[in-house]
Amino acid sequence: MEHDFHNWLRNHTSIQGLGKSVILGIGDDGAILPESSAHTVVTTDTIAEGTHFDTSIHSLEQIGRKAIAVNLSDIAAMGAMPTHAVLTLLMPRHFSLDEAIQLYSGILEIASNYNVTIIGGDTNRWDGNLVIGATLIGQRSPSISGWKLDGAQAADRVVVSGSFGGSISGHHLSFEPRIELANYLAGRYEIHAATDVSDSLSLDLQLLANASNVGLDIEAEKIPISNSLKAANSPKPLDGALYDGEDFELILTVAPAVFERIKLDSDVPCQLTDIGEVTPKEQGLRILDSHGTPNPMIPRGYIH
Amino acid sequence: MEHDFHNWLRNHTSIQGLGKSVILGIGDDGAILPESSAHTVVTTDTIAEGTHFDTSIHSLEQIGRKAIAVNLSDIAAMGAMPTHAVLTLLMPRHFSLDEAIQLYSGILEIASNYNVTIIGGDTNRWDGNLVIGATLIGQRSPSISGWKLDGAQAADRVVVSGSFGGSISGHHLSFEPRIELANYLAGRYEIHAATDVSDSLSLDLQLLANASNVGLDIEAEKIPISNSLKAANSPKPLDGALYDGEDFELILTVAPAVFERIKLDSDVPCQLTDIGEVTPKEQGLRILDSHGTPNPMIPRGYIH
Repeated sequence: MEHDFHNWLRNHTSIQGLGKSVILGIGDDGAILPESSAHTVVTTDTIAEGTHFDTSIHSLEQIGRKAIAVNLSDIAAMGAMPTHAVLTLLMPRHFSLDEAIQLYSGILEIASNYNVTIIGGDTNRWDGNLVIGATLIGQRSPSISGWKLDGAQAADRVVVSGSFGGSISGHHLSFEPRIELANYLAGRYEIHAATDVSDSLSLDLQLLANASNVGLDIEAEKIPISNSLKAANSPKPLDGALYDGEDFELILTVAPAVFERIKLDSDVPCQLTDIGEVTPKEQGLRILDSHGTPNPMIPRGYIH
Repeated sequence: MEHDFHNWLRNHTSIQGLGKSVILGIGDDGAILPESSAHTVVTTDTIAEGTHFDTSIHSLEQIGRKAIAVNLSDIAAMGAMPTHAVLTLLMPRHFSLDEAIQLYSGILEIASNYNVTIIGGDTNRWDGNLVIGATLIGQRSPSISGWKLDGAQAADRVVVSGSFGGSISGHHLSFEPRIELANYLAGRYEIHAATDVSDSLSLDLQLLANASNVGLDIEAEKIPISNSLKAANSPKPLDGALYDGEDFELILTVAPAVFERIKLDSDVPCQLTDIGEVTPKEQGLRILDSHGTPNPMIPRGYIH
């Protein structure tokens, strides 16, 4: 099966357009990329059975897709364009050739959709459960700055893409990483801070605030609630939006004047919502109710 | 423990010289490397409990070291210099802070020895066994070519570094990846084909021959046998050298005239041995006994 799988892989990765920005690709000890006038962005994320997916519920195509999508979300949070990926796969011994191909089909489809060339990897069988690791490489123009976890500045608006909550009902597998949005904004507007919501909106807001040494005032009523969470008729949809996690939306902070310009730009490729303001650190993380009354926000998230 | 570990990590990775060729490092969604006039080499390898190490025998420092060393060996096989690494760690739930630190100490020590800057990573706990993945990034001058698995040419000499066999007695954990040798040779001599011996000398010779579409005549008596294998008084040391695996030495092929020059160069930083010749593909993989009589070489290796 190992041999058949590698043959399949070679045939299906070569059609992905090696040669485009690759000097040497899959099959050697390493890949070689040409010299570049852009900055190189590198991010890595591993997903594992029982923690990030459940092979008894999710299809192998969905799982393969997710392994790439979570990394693309990090690339988006850097304001960068993805270009290349390397993969590592630990497959259970009982995996068949057909199962390995299903998994890789999900990987190759999303890679192709985002113009990511798979340039190498490492596949092993072992006695444990399925583990898929990916390192994504991207490019960003040296003229772009910001997009940093510690970049939030006092009086910035806190802006989020999309909506939040209930991702466990499927969105954590099917989400589109915010690559298009990130690249639209990165080329046009000065973004101070950026991160993606993997743990939960509240936890990732906390990470950003702590890194930036600021407080945040978040207005409860402005947080966009996902349709799946609305449809679930949860008694506390706000809790779902703050704590569910794996939304893979972007949190950005921008100067108020910049956000005024973004609001007037009808070409922004997805919904952006202003949910609050960057405040002095002493105020901490606060959630403001409909009367504007602040309460401390206690961050928590989905425990994998 | 997660929080304490990340604090420890931040303190111990920042002293590694971030700033040296890193625009943004650990702690954000991704790292950013500056534009480069060199080619970028990327390689990835994951090691897992029960397959590549055994936590009941090997220390966590040794295991952490190995996770980086196996990747450095691939970088050496590309004739490149390592520069950066990202790590992914899946730790068993019972792991203590102290154990996580032991593991990372082994990682950081070898990274420091080879001037590799850790620029990011991803740490998770899970119900499975320990898994450590690393993606290594390196640089190579655009003026260097060759060093490819499929680069062997008819009449080339087949040359190996170091010695082979018995790596299970400890060498698979303590080996020094052949970075120094690779960089010495890459800057001075034209190397046609190169790979490192991870599976076994016989299996990696076969990979190189198949990729290059050539045969190989290997002279049994010339294969350098490791001291540990000699000391073990194995009845068939040649079998150990051909089949044990995880030697992490380099296999190179070079034109005969180039190897004549290399032989006269007393500054080559490790032992190189001419073990045979690249032949037409039709001759296949052959091992020549002390009388020069060829027999088919049946490749096999350590089954993880």
